[in-house]
Amino acid sequence: MKNKIALEEHFAIDLTITDSQVYARPEMWQGLKNNLLDFEQQRIEQMDEWGTELSILSLNSPAVQGIPDAKRAVEVARRANDVLAEQIRRHPTRFGGFAALPMQDPEAAARELERCVTQLGFHGFLVNGFSQVGDENTVVYYDDPRFADFWSTAAALKKPFYMHPRDPLLNREPIYEGAHWLTGPTWAFAVETGIHALRLLSSGLFDRHPELQMILGHFGEGIPFNIWRVDHILRKGRRGMPCDREIGDYLRSNVHITTSGNFRTPTLLSTMLEVGSDRIMYSVDYPFEKHEDAARWFDRCEISENDRRKIGRDNAVKLFGLK
Amino acid sequence: MKNKIALEEHFAIDLTITDSQVYARPEMWQGLKNNLLDFEQQRIEQMDEWGTELSILSLNSPAVQGIPDAKRAVEVARRANDVLAEQIRRHPTRFGGFAALPMQDPEAAARELERCVTQLGFHGFLVNGFSQVGDENTVVYYDDPRFADFWSTAAALKKPFYMHPRDPLLNREPIYEGAHWLTGPTWAFAVETGIHALRLLSSGLFDRHPELQMILGHFGEGIPFNIWRVDHILRKGRRGMPCDREIGDYLRSNVHITTSGNFRTPTLLSTMLEVGSDRIMYSVDYPFEKHEDAARWFDRCEISENDRRKIGRDNAVKLFGLK
Amino acid sequence: MKNKIALEEHFAIDLTITDSQVYARPEMWQGLKNNLLDFEQQRIEQMDEWGTELSILSLNSPAVQGIPDAKRAVEVARRANDVLAEQIRRHPTRFGGFAALPMQDPEAAARELERCVTQLGFHGFLVNGFSQVGDENTVVYYDDPRFADFWSTAAALKKPFYMHPRDPLLNREPIYEGAHWLTGPTWAFAVETGIHALRLLSSGLFDRHPELQMILGHFGEGIPFNIWRVDHILRKGRRGMPCDREIGDYLRSNVHITTSGNFRTPTLLSTMLEVGSDRIMYSVDYPFEKHEDAARWFDRCEISENDRRKIGRDNAVKLFGLK
Amino acid sequence: MKNKIALEEHFAIDLTITDSQVYARPEMWQGLKNNLLDFEQQRIEQMDEWGTELSILSLNSPAVQGIPDAKRAVEVARRANDVLAEQIRRHPTRFGGFAALPMQDPEAAARELERCVTQLGFHGFLVNGFSQVGDENTVVYYDDPRFADFWSTAAALKKPFYMHPRDPLLNREPIYEGAHWLTGPTWAFAVETGIHALRLLSSGLFDRHPELQMILGHFGEGIPFNIWRVDHILRKGRRGMPCDREIGDYLRSNVHITTSGNFRTPTLLSTMLEVGSDRIMYSVDYPFEKHEDAARWFDRCEISENDRRKIGRDNAVKLFGLK
Ligand SMILES: [Zn+2]
Ligand SMILES: [Zn+2]
Ligand SMILES: [Zn+2]
Ligand SMILES: [Zn+2]
Repeated sequence: MKNKIALEEHFAIDLTITDSQVYARPEMWQGLKNNLLDFEQQRIEQMDEWGTELSILSLNSPAVQGIPDAKRAVEVARRANDVLAEQIRRHPTRFGGFAALPMQDPEAAARELERCVTQLGFHGFLVNGFSQVGDENTVVYYDDPRFADFWSTAAALKKPFYMHPRDPLLNREPIYEGAHWLTGPTWAFAVETGIHALRLLSSGLFDRHPELQMILGHFGEGIPFNIWRVDHILRKGRRGMPCDREIGDYLRSNVHITTSGNFRTPTLLSTMLEVGSDRIMYSVDYPFEKHEDAARWFDRCEISENDRRKIGRDNAVKLFGLK
Repeated sequence: MKNKIALEEHFAIDLTITDSQVYARPEMWQGLKNNLLDFEQQRIEQMDEWGTELSILSLNSPAVQGIPDAKRAVEVARRANDVLAEQIRRHPTRFGGFAALPMQDPEAAARELERCVTQLGFHGFLVNGFSQVGDENTVVYYDDPRFADFWSTAAALKKPFYMHPRDPLLNREPIYEGAHWLTGPTWAFAVETGIHALRLLSSGLFDRHPELQMILGHFGEGIPFNIWRVDHILRKGRRGMPCDREIGDYLRSNVHITTSGNFRTPTLLSTMLEVGSDRIMYSVDYPFEKHEDAARWFDRCEISENDRRKIGRDNAVKLFGLK
Repeated sequence: MKNKIALEEHFAIDLTITDSQVYARPEMWQGLKNNLLDFEQQRIEQMDEWGTELSILSLNSPAVQGIPDAKRAVEVARRANDVLAEQIRRHPTRFGGFAALPMQDPEAAARELERCVTQLGFHGFLVNGFSQVGDENTVVYYDDPRFADFWSTAAALKKPFYMHPRDPLLNREPIYEGAHWLTGPTWAFAVETGIHALRLLSSGLFDRHPELQMILGHFGEGIPFNIWRVDHILRKGRRGMPCDREIGDYLRSNVHITTSGNFRTPTLLSTMLEVGSDRIMYSVDYPFEKHEDAARWFDRCEISENDRRKIGRDNAVKLFGLK
Repeated sequence: MKNKIALEEHFAIDLTITDSQVYARPEMWQGLKNNLLDFEQQRIEQMDEWGTELSILSLNSPAVQGIPDAKRAVEVARRANDVLAEQIRRHPTRFGGFAALPMQDPEAAARELERCVTQLGFHGFLVNGFSQVGDENTVVYYDDPRFADFWSTAAALKKPFYMHPRDPLLNREPIYEGAHWLTGPTWAFAVETGIHALRLLSSGLFDRHPELQMILGHFGEGIPFNIWRVDHILRKGRRGMPCDREIGDYLRSNVHITTSGNFRTPTLLSTMLEVGSDRIMYSVDYPFEKHEDAARWFDRCEISENDRRKIGRDNAVKLFGLK
């Protein structure tokens, strides 16, 4: 497929690049670093070779979310967004943008989001999971009441947001002790991000903002596979859950799901049977994943060509109001 | 289907019954309690009504795993196993047993397992996740080196074990703070048990004991949906993972998966496409789940009748060497 | 689901009712006859009980297609369409109509179709397979050149047509001799209608009229299951096939498929994976099939609620320009 | 996968080779002819390159079935079987055999089958659909009473038979007039063979011989997709159908299905959900299909590796009692 749109494609700036070093074996780090900092060389070459017309770019992880000093977070976010805006200006048919936001300061985050959407033409924002606020060990999830106004601003802008993984703080997840190969994209990313997404879905956020759309990568971080059980259990007793509807209702109304880093048809199938093909979208997770791996799988995976066009492009066109 | 075999069916004894109170709304507790303590009344009636010929019974959760005092854990396990043995003796065609084991004392656990299998005719053992050892906040997973001899004993007995959920200790999982409706069977059970299972699968345990079989409930606690991604990520770098093969290889060779509490065909389908129908088995999770819900779904779910017979009965017959 | 739209729902008039007798066991005939002739009693009651808001009605089979005398065919078609129009006028929110057409006279068929669409407000037309023309043993399929102008008229009206089954003439299908239980809806309907549909799809008709839409019942009369093989074989040699593209391309661009009489999720799944859920629509095939059987299956079949709404209603709304 | 077993692999002898010319474009005929007559060169090379360890070989189509002179049919069958036996003798680890049988003379066919199985070590027999008997236009299907003793012989030998396609006689299938690109493997093969198979399945043959196994190629010639509807319709009225059970019961008990010429995962999935993976077996249809096309698909299609081993090899080992 020649004109795919990809949504979980990352870059880094000088101030955030070292955050990604942990995700590369030492001998691969220089290559990953180059790919994160590059925009116009291998990034566009790879997009051309593997049929991605448009990449909506976002900062690496955790980056801004991992800066406890709110003022510093604001500065780094702004710097990253400006770098990205410049690249979009140079390649408006090839790049789009998700804003990085200093969620440590919800008011500043709202202002930065407005700037990114209304002035820079960004397509929404991407957060790398929870934010550390004030000190390294103080963590906030975005169902916290302090974000009420932020979400009102975000919803009013009518752009989706991407809930992207970050690793949990190890002192908050001793379960991985002695098995650290399970952290990061192996398993911990999905667990951490899945729970954060479930917090938002069950918080009432989407009752207050029924048009708001959250994007989840990696085929929904495991949620589609167990969503029936989630609702089945809560139907026996909601245990104080504050939202109005069932979590699965929000999953089917307020969530879009991408293929990033999870290039597997049975998983696509399970997701399609829970949310429908209108809410699934192609993504790579470049440069942590290869365009080649994503496209070799997606371009040939055995689904209807009609669904391939929707997942590969048309759903994103509709969600972001492109063209 | 009239002669199903169910594998994740729970009872309690006086010493463990209160552990289950947290899983029932107050108005439901008396009923749940009665069902957990009952063997011969409503338990067999429900089995009869919904077509379960044989239930392999196990103690409630966390029970023995939640007793830090090893000596006490040994006593409670022994008492529970004796109660169960008596019921099996009275109803040998309707009940089988999984041993409860005091994993706080691996040597004692091995002896109790031998007793249960060789003298009491049990079909293996079931552990409710990690054990607290010595004090409430000291936790051990079973990939710990102290269990080397225990696993040798278990493997030599040629019976499978069931890795059953328990809730994480909240001080070890602050991620659920303020969203406690996500704990227990809603979501935390699967996360906790999935990671424990992945620890075992990646630890080398199944290299040392290639015939050993682990049973996972709830359609594999989310693992089948993401197993491709697990192996895909680790193929880029094993990061010290000590096992010989890929985690998916063990999933397809050393794991059986049950339907307990997850009565959903797309989830069955995704699991079937990852492990094949020879490794999927019917279960209810009674009395936390209803036979009615399980059987109404399973008896009619739209799979081949050939697979229904295997999943409903024949795979269990083969795994446990019944008949 | 409460507001379903159903598309393959049949009635008969006095002149055509006996055509359906062969499809009922003797003891069932009176009931079937009553149901075919009824509009306002049990038909609407069943729709109400099983959640069909709107039925698009069509004449029984073969009816007009089985009248070799073209003049008579014209008269019967007109009479049936007038009867149907009157019922639609009385129940405009509950009934829609597909025109019966005297394909024995393509020019007259075109005129009748225009009348039905522009004056009577019908939603397209339904043909019961081939027509007998002039005498009982002379048969015509609608890829015949004589229909060129008819198809231009049909395409210009921008309404779909339903290719509905009829039994083959037994002297043209000796393969069923001695196994007549395989005729009719058991098997012969799908074979006959599938081949007729393939004739149209491969004839170039949809090159000339790329917006024209054909509806197939019974999950596509077997075509989705083998469409990959059809195109795979023809890719090795087109053997004179006159169309421009692959048959599968037309299947995914010019065909909609209904659930009529084939209430089976694996079949739905196979079809969804070949054509996507945007081209699948609920239907019953009343009164040959029961609303109860269709709705009990469809309302609970384990697909996404998003797809259920599309298949149950929204795809028909879009295809017919309703509301 | 390196050690696959393939079951629908054809050869020709001088007396039958011209029967296959119609299935090749003129410029491809010489190549196809060479491949059909070859055993030890490109046949084994292709098997080696694409991972087929053992091919069970059968004569091309229609060959013996298209020889109305029974005496001549007997001679040609015997000659073909002797040629095949010699090749098996030379390559016992690479080739197995299905007997060609002169069904025009049921008694002779039974004797030849006995000879092939007991003396030549063949694995069963393969028939190319109906046989012409006495003259070109007299056709017999094998549910005919004259085959009663033949089937007893076949069942007693405890080997399966392969119901392989042939084209219908055009004077018996005027539906293809003017659309001859739909004949042969495009569509007519499946229709003709599917109906023949349904005749056998519904005839009572498998009541008399409940262990007898029929193999169908091309993912069951369309039957799995519609088997629910077949049984659903017949449940309303059996219309004289002489068998004891439902047709679907026989499909799940007495039929094995191969992948020959239908290399498509959604079709595999639909079949798996109707008959289970224990009854699906790899095949190519060489040299009409390429080992490369079959293996590139099958070796990577996204099913469990456990199922891949069963379908690729183990089910055949079990069915034929190999090793
Ligand atoms: Zn990413
Ligand atoms: Zn349980
Ligand atoms: Zn109909
Ligand atoms: Zn063949």
